[in-house]
Amino acid sequence: MQLPQLVQTQFLSVHDAATVIHKIGLETVFKRMAEYIRADYLRWNDFEKCARVANHSEDGVIELMPISDASSYAFKYVNGHPKNTFNGLPCVMAFGVLADVATGIPEFLSELTLSTALRTAAMSAVAAQELARPDSKTMALIGNGAQSEFQALAFHYLLGIEEIRLFDTDPKATEKLIVNLRSTKLRLKVCSSIADAVRGADIVTTVTADKTNAAILTADLIEAGMHINGVGGDCPGKTELHPDVLRRSAVFVEYEPQTRIEGDLQHLPADFAVTELWQVLARQAPGRRDAEQITLFDSVGFALQDYSALRFMRDAARELGLGQRVSLIPELVNPKDLFVLIHPDTHANAEPGLTEAPQRAVSGVRTHSLGVPA
Amino acid sequence: MQLPQLVQTQFLSVHDAATVIHKIGLETVFKRMAEYIRADYLRWNDFEKCARVANHSEDGVIELMPISDASSYAFKYVNGHPKNTFNGLPCVMAFGVLADVATGIPEFLSELTLSTALRTAAMSAVAAQELARPDSKTMALIGNGAQSEFQALAFHYLLGIEEIRLFDTDPKATEKLIVNLRSTKLRLKVCSSIADAVRGADIVTTVTADKTNAAILTADLIEAGMHINGVGGDCPGKTELHPDVLRRSAVFVEYEPQTRIEGDLQHLPADFAVTELWQVLARQAPGRRDAEQITLFDSVGFALQDYSALRFMRDAARELGLGQRVSLIPELVNPKDLFVLIHPDTHANAEPGLTEAPQRAVSGVRTHSLGVPA
Repeated sequence: MQLPQLVQTQFLSVHDAATVIHKIGLETVFKRMAEYIRADYLRWNDFEKCARVANHSEDGVIELMPISDASSYAFKYVNGHPKNTFNGLPCVMAFGVLADVATGIPEFLSELTLSTALRTAAMSAVAAQELARPDSKTMALIGNGAQSEFQALAFHYLLGIEEIRLFDTDPKATEKLIVNLRSTKLRLKVCSSIADAVRGADIVTTVTADKTNAAILTADLIEAGMHINGVGGDCPGKTELHPDVLRRSAVFVEYEPQTRIEGDLQHLPADFAVTELWQVLARQAPGRRDAEQITLFDSVGFALQDYSALRFMRDAARELGLGQRVSLIPELVNPKDLFVLIHPDTHANAEPGLTEAPQRAVSGVRTHSLGVPA
Repeated sequence: MQLPQLVQTQFLSVHDAATVIHKIGLETVFKRMAEYIRADYLRWNDFEKCARVANHSEDGVIELMPISDASSYAFKYVNGHPKNTFNGLPCVMAFGVLADVATGIPEFLSELTLSTALRTAAMSAVAAQELARPDSKTMALIGNGAQSEFQALAFHYLLGIEEIRLFDTDPKATEKLIVNLRSTKLRLKVCSSIADAVRGADIVTTVTADKTNAAILTADLIEAGMHINGVGGDCPGKTELHPDVLRRSAVFVEYEPQTRIEGDLQHLPADFAVTELWQVLARQAPGRRDAEQITLFDSVGFALQDYSALRFMRDAARELGLGQRVSLIPELVNPKDLFVLIHPDTHANAEPGLTEAPQRAVSGVRTHSLGVPA
């Protein structure tokens, strides 16, 4: 009897992902993830891209973000529900899959809530490496929620930012950030207003969560030479920057067709000029022109970053032997015989085993347990 | 300290899904799944619909199929790789998620390879209940691969089909079907050609897998009063029916914008009239007009059926106490504090437990094990 092909899906839970990061160390994680993102952005034209597919409801959005090249396919499921916080739930939750283009096998299923926070911050830092002034030392951080510590540390580790100027309408969010980052070398300054935080900063990061058209930043606050890292405006009707801020800046985006719909760019006319970041990374377009220019990364989060994040987490988990197999897809002795799985005569009603080793049921159906955590 | 909201994802493995079907019994499964499909199709206008998002490669396609109403969001991941069979892999593999629209929580993650086979057959039977002659007793089944037994049995249980006339270019596929269905009451007749199988049949089901523009059925084979259930033509460049077969028939589809791209309908002009099946189910359009009419269900598989299948499998698994929790999404004491998961001082490096009971780590981060199979 022919042995069935292995159809293995490796699952990385929240706990496993946290352990990957803990073992590798956050600084190295950011550096490696940034390398994965850069490498993938340099292959921009190898990818089949589309704007993400969004289902909107009154209080939020659920999105699917697929992307593929000739060998791998990735997608992320992600929601955005700003009011979740009031019910004790994260605003953003995510998971995703990396699949083999040649066969369609979903090879790697991972939590992506934590990984999205990491990749978003890594992406912001990759953009700022091209767009911020090289001598940048201080960053204003407007919005001190779930994403904020990741932004602070990515800019610390990848750009050498030494001081973070904090503002949030919720003082408890700022307190939480300070507790979380007290053991780092960052100088943390609590500011009394957005203007106070922004004044004199080299980089301004906005990462607020309201699903409204806000104007966290207005043009009068912006100073020559600043780099603006606009992270929170990422959905139709959810923006952070006054349009005049964009008009004063050289604007860089991930994937133009998506950012026109979702970014702060949504308030600008369709012919407002922007540059896709991959062109800067590939030296096909200039980044920052001079020390006086105001640059702006209108970040919305593009599927390619998740492709990079999934690749990194898969590789890192593999190196560390973390994760476990899940029986998401059947393994069949005869691929034309799916019915055998439920055939009354042959359905193996026994419990699947608990070991990592594949098992063969009497029917020729091979089942895997979820296994015990590694 | 505030207790975190539960962010529970229930996982139904391949083995669990097979056990659900085994315990409930295939006849009841088909009948209940058909009821779920009918109920959801009668709420057609409640759903936010889109054509599925496809990433095509040389040998196949990977698709995401999202759909939502005011309370639930569903999506399916599914591939189509006809050459997989030669490598011992299923051509079609799938999994999917049911999520809560109000919060975005992915509540139910399930295998859908087996469930897709069930829902496709149930959908075909629901359509045939409206479109085939009520006195139908015989069905030609062209293509005896992974989907074929499901089609045969759905038509047996839901329409009273007594005789199946089998043809496949691969005689081993037909032999496999006969072995799988030998304990049923169906009369199985092996035919030497498509024409032989189709001649005199009340219903003709085509369910072949080649990613080519084939003409399995030509107009000369079609007899008055037949119902054609075209299942295999479901992708640009992957069709089964000669356009003249459609021209001779009253054509019914799931979701017109998607079928125009993917169905056998792709070879007909954009103004070729078709009827969406929900209109027939809702008595807003006629089904079969008379005993002489030729009817055709150009099935491609629409996200709403997967929404129904996920709902059914979730409910059935819940009734039977099957499935297990997976830690796909973090549970946080403070939803604004995601960083705590990886904070060097607080990251709980201990193995998560093996029981179903939620655990609380010292950091206030709650982790769940995958648990052991129920």
